[in-house]
Amino acid sequence: MLLEIYLCFTELQMDRINIKKLAEELNLSKSTVSRAFRDNDDIKADTKARILAKAKELNYQPNHYASNLREQKSRTIAIIVPELANNYFSQAIHGIERIAREHNYHILIYVTDDDYQKEVDFIRHLHNGRADGIIMSASGEANNHSYLNKLGGKRLPLVFFDRVYEDIDVPRVVTNDYDSSFKATEHLILQGCEKIAYLVVNKSLSIGKTRMQGYIDALEKYRIKFDDRYIVDCSNSYEENDVIVKEVLKDLKPDGIFASVERLAFATYYACYDLKLEIPKDLKVISFSSLEIAPLLNPSLTTITQPATDIGGQAAQLLFNLLEGEQVVSTIQEVVLKSKLFIRNSTNK
Amino acid sequence: MLLEIYLCFTELQMDRINIKKLAEELNLSKSTVSRAFRDNDDIKADTKARILAKAKELNYQPNHYASNLREQKSRTIAIIVPELANNYFSQAIHGIERIAREHNYHILIYVTDDDYQKEVDFIRHLHNGRADGIIMSASGEANNHSYLNKLGGKRLPLVFFDRVYEDIDVPRVVTNDYDSSFKATEHLILQGCEKIAYLVVNKSLSIGKTRMQGYIDALEKYRIKFDDRYIVDCSNSYEENDVIVKEVLKDLKPDGIFASVERLAFATYYACYDLKLEIPKDLKVISFSSLEIAPLLNPSLTTITQPATDIGGQAAQLLFNLLEGEQVVSTIQEVVLKSKLFIRNSTNK
Repeated sequence: MLLEIYLCFTELQMDRINIKKLAEELNLSKSTVSRAFRDNDDIKADTKARILAKAKELNYQPNHYASNLREQKSRTIAIIVPELANNYFSQAIHGIERIAREHNYHILIYVTDDDYQKEVDFIRHLHNGRADGIIMSASGEANNHSYLNKLGGKRLPLVFFDRVYEDIDVPRVVTNDYDSSFKATEHLILQGCEKIAYLVVNKSLSIGKTRMQGYIDALEKYRIKFDDRYIVDCSNSYEENDVIVKEVLKDLKPDGIFASVERLAFATYYACYDLKLEIPKDLKVISFSSLEIAPLLNPSLTTITQPATDIGGQAAQLLFNLLEGEQVVSTIQEVVLKSKLFIRNSTNK
Repeated sequence: MLLEIYLCFTELQMDRINIKKLAEELNLSKSTVSRAFRDNDDIKADTKARILAKAKELNYQPNHYASNLREQKSRTIAIIVPELANNYFSQAIHGIERIAREHNYHILIYVTDDDYQKEVDFIRHLHNGRADGIIMSASGEANNHSYLNKLGGKRLPLVFFDRVYEDIDVPRVVTNDYDSSFKATEHLILQGCEKIAYLVVNKSLSIGKTRMQGYIDALEKYRIKFDDRYIVDCSNSYEENDVIVKEVLKDLKPDGIFASVERLAFATYYACYDLKLEIPKDLKVISFSSLEIAPLLNPSLTTITQPATDIGGQAAQLLFNLLEGEQVVSTIQEVVLKSKLFIRNSTNK
């Protein structure tokens, strides 16, 4: 095994206590003191406690970068998400954060704004030692993401949640999207809808495809003819969605809307207010959504709710299995959690 | 000036390209190649481009920790917030994230769950080199936070937003909370309310006090007698708030509710649904809230909305002024942004 030596110079502030001084104060060796600041068992508990107490008293902090160079660990995980302004992602991050804190890890957050190039840049950059592992909801499914495979053995431990790359072989946490979509569509049909529009932001995503297939199969089960004009490609912009949804409502006159993300349900509500359409009389609405106040909407919104906090927590757990080398558990490749259907007034008969 | 030498050993993986090999490939010196990976101007643009292109081709990444030891910079800022499950904080983080990305900085996120001890632990830990600066919305105003002053000259650059410690002398971004509260209370009075309850989570926070003073002064202006039973101390728990708010509605029978955070407005809505009280007929409601879908609630919610994304962006800007040593700008001590009153159906006459 080759060793490379870095010579690193760091300025010593005159008022700063260093490990040598700390060791002198305690009448211990530098290496003993140093061990107290690592997560090892090679030091007696009472000695460690004594050292940490003195360090606190003298306001000493071990240099993070120096100790990381020795340990080759940043005790940091990076989270990459397409957006923050979405209850699903903020709850998932909250779930990850809790588990990370239990493991005494830090979290870095990166937002791609659904821009694949940003994702590539973030990931490349993370491979220089800033993080030990990555939890990602992917942004660039339509693109070539073989860059992840090119990283080969050097690739950081990676776990996907929600939006995954099917061709990248890493653990993932997803929900039963096909079943949920099937049930959502079936629910609209059983409530009397015959012309159901499916609103989607990025139908090329696997999650978009899976959800769409559930919709299509439910129509087929009830012998409703599939018409691809009712698959409506929307956007991330409020203004654009307002135009798109209003056109759909005027031109296609659907009696049911199935929104694949909550912002499209909101766009539908606003459009109905403006066009004087009444939900659920003129139009029933169901949506994938993690909005906790869905019962407070006018009318209260029927949702398929993913267990977002749990999804984040499970993804973090899978990553820690990889990081901490628990082989038995880390053979788990896919965790599938169940979404729940909450029936409310927006789909009343 | 004293220099301290760290000897740091790092494992060299056999397949890993190092800076020496990269320099050989380019027929350049190691120090020239090394300069290309720093944000200095001491290298020609075309040389730098050539080096970066070759590095990309060979999949080389400079070791982050080694280069940080040399530069004493992590290019990372830490954000500390009391909670994530609040639209205000997720929007503020989004604002910070955008500015940080422009400056090519990374962000670490810490959530205190309103627990002061967690805040202290996070901050202590951050002083070991993991971050260059901190943006914080404080959690422990009722506590002694002199620990921040004890860090003295070693204290990382710090900027407060929204919830500040008055006795810690650092730049801050706040909103005109007194005026907003005064106007909110006045609005309820002008809509006919005479018994206005003010719901607050932590009235010992300066932000809680400032908002309360606006409420009290507005009552006085309209010669409504102040009764401290109408100042209602709530909690962060849904279940507890449900009990507290229902008791207030039954015992004190207020005709107006002024909620200092959005979750208390939601608790009021749920309580009114359960108690068959009609908003705004029986009770008018106004709330501080960054909820974008306030117009979709039943009834649509009158809000005082803080420019959360801007607040985050401005706080980040103040921190970068400190980090980048722009003395002129960094004398800015306080930025006050204005909240907006959006009148909707929940306060209709």
